[in-house]
Amino acid sequence: MSIFDQIRKPTLLLDEQIVRRNIRAMAQKVAASGVHFRPHFKTHQSCQIGEWFREEGVSAITVSSVDMAKYFADCGWDDITLAFPVNLRQLDEIAHLAERIRLGVLVESVETVQALGERVRAPLAVWIKVDVGANRTGIAWDDVETASALVKTCQAYPALRLNGLLTHAGQTYQAAYPAQVEEIYRQSLSKLQSLRHVLEQQGLAQSLILSVGDTPSSSIVQDFRPADEIRPGNFVFYDVQQWMLGACTWENIGVALACPVVSLHPRRGEAVIYGGAVHLSKEYLLSKGQRFYGLVALPKDGRWSEPLPGAYVSRLSQEHGILRLFPHQLEQLRVGDLVCILPVHSCLTAQSMGRYLTLDGNWIEMMPRF
Amino acid sequence: MSIFDQIRKPTLLLDEQIVRRNIRAMAQKVAASGVHFRPHFKTHQSCQIGEWFREEGVSAITVSSVDMAKYFADCGWDDITLAFPVNLRQLDEIAHLAERIRLGVLVESVETVQALGERVRAPLAVWIKVDVGANRTGIAWDDVETASALVKTCQAYPALRLNGLLTHAGQTYQAAYPAQVEEIYRQSLSKLQSLRHVLEQQGLAQSLILSVGDTPSSSIVQDFRPADEIRPGNFVFYDVQQWMLGACTWENIGVALACPVVSLHPRRGEAVIYGGAVHLSKEYLLSKGQRFYGLVALPKDGRWSEPLPGAYVSRLSQEHGILRLFPHQLEQLRVGDLVCILPVHSCLTAQSMGRYLTLDGNWIEMMPRF
Repeated sequence: MSIFDQIRKPTLLLDEQIVRRNIRAMAQKVAASGVHFRPHFKTHQSCQIGEWFREEGVSAITVSSVDMAKYFADCGWDDITLAFPVNLRQLDEIAHLAERIRLGVLVESVETVQALGERVRAPLAVWIKVDVGANRTGIAWDDVETASALVKTCQAYPALRLNGLLTHAGQTYQAAYPAQVEEIYRQSLSKLQSLRHVLEQQGLAQSLILSVGDTPSSSIVQDFRPADEIRPGNFVFYDVQQWMLGACTWENIGVALACPVVSLHPRRGEAVIYGGAVHLSKEYLLSKGQRFYGLVALPKDGRWSEPLPGAYVSRLSQEHGILRLFPHQLEQLRVGDLVCILPVHSCLTAQSMGRYLTLDGNWIEMMPRF
Repeated sequence: MSIFDQIRKPTLLLDEQIVRRNIRAMAQKVAASGVHFRPHFKTHQSCQIGEWFREEGVSAITVSSVDMAKYFADCGWDDITLAFPVNLRQLDEIAHLAERIRLGVLVESVETVQALGERVRAPLAVWIKVDVGANRTGIAWDDVETASALVKTCQAYPALRLNGLLTHAGQTYQAAYPAQVEEIYRQSLSKLQSLRHVLEQQGLAQSLILSVGDTPSSSIVQDFRPADEIRPGNFVFYDVQQWMLGACTWENIGVALACPVVSLHPRRGEAVIYGGAVHLSKEYLLSKGQRFYGLVALPKDGRWSEPLPGAYVSRLSQEHGILRLFPHQLEQLRVGDLVCILPVHSCLTAQSMGRYLTLDGNWIEMMPRF
């Protein structure tokens, strides 16, 4: 019996072979560069998938919330960077976690460092979050004054250990072509190096580690030096967005949403699937001015096929997805058939679905919602 | 102690007073029109909130998935329309449900009617889904041929009871001003009446019920006749989208996402909150060409304030939200403070969050994800 025979409703399929291959390839590339690998686990959010990383020698991870840090600490990860600005409302939880594991946090204001210093007793690794152009969080890379103040404040509290400078160059997602991703990577590291240089010259800090790593850079760049640590997350599954950026091929996409076809509209060139915004998320991409929420593949030999040329998810409502298809593609579909949607953004699709079904028919659990 | 003192991370607040007022107002308006009220429960997805409808005399409901029908059947609702094209992969579940409750389903193809007829033994209410311009699902309102074929096929199976014609005029969401919503409502009903007239003239069907009802129409239109049944859902909470459409005021918005401020960037005119795409969803609106994912209110006297003029959520990543604020608004904020985000689309925010916290400090559970 094929895995597709048991699917009744939108189901997030996971191809373990592809996912393990993605993990291995990245682990090997990072090792070849001689840098430290601290993959981000916010994409998969699963202890079970975490074990596949451990099998590739990974022992340190990144997460994006206190809850996620607790979840992974509970399944045996003891070296976790919480790559999100410190939420002062969870200071007690952070202090408790620091007693259980090697915890790292990101700071960008003196007030937050002081709050940590006053509250946390166990050793806590502190990273200065640096903004190298993503304009999201972090101090500006040339804001030496704030950087110095952060370093000095850290030094005033014995539990706080300044680890280094950390950035997320999220602007790689806006790159027009792969060489531009590489350029952004190089510029980001130059900015971090420059800030480190000034802090070292001022005698404020020594041996600051430089931690970087979004999936586009980590996939496209070959030699990660002079970074010391790489933290990509999305590469575990990749998705259509990464494919469009040139960070992967469609064969690297490790998850697809299996959805029943519920209605056919040949005159409009459309089919309707059970699979909507609550399953895929409303993340979209533009292609030739046309918005799309996913690409369309078909079940084939127990996996999903190559995406159908020119076919895409054109609209989403809460539970409905509207597919645009060519007439010959529509003719092959019947109500009750399944299609496999390659997601635009696998992190959000995984989060929406909450668990995975492998092609071998095993459920993989994710972190519970509460 | 204020409810805000106990909030540590993104939390979906629910103002029970507002929500009950929204339910009561709609129930009274529908009653005044002398039509049947079958509210859609996909917005709140909560048995507990369902009880507030029961207190207003509601006994029949609409849902958008088989799972949701089972969930509400389990908490005592026995008259449920499943307003989603029949998913043939859940035919067994539909057949079982029809034995437990008065179940209604939507059809738009002869093949689906046949599949239902062959499988379902208990009486099943069948609605012909009609497309009056939303271009999502349903037969075209002037496709008399398919409508006739559907009616005749229904009549071939004793368990299938043809109830009427049902539409969702989702194009009201694109209306530029309230009068246009009303116009779409009137046109939708004319189209349904026209189709009913032809089917009756052909002697195929008698007394077909006309069921309509999106929240914009149901909020703006005063007299619902000649509709027989109204099925809005979103009005229970409303949201910024409905406010922009003129379907409500901000005082009608019944849920808000409380989010900790984690980073301030006065030079950019921005603050960063813990509250991102996984909490709010990536649904957005445009105002003067500017995309926004929510409006920004503040905790005030145990509830949320009026939205801050000109402030909005300008970007979202997985866990981060970026607020655009005026300098005087930013000056009032400290890292660790809470803001209350009025969501663009409350259905998706509720689905993402999975439960509610009332202003009185009680958790309200939603349908479980699995």
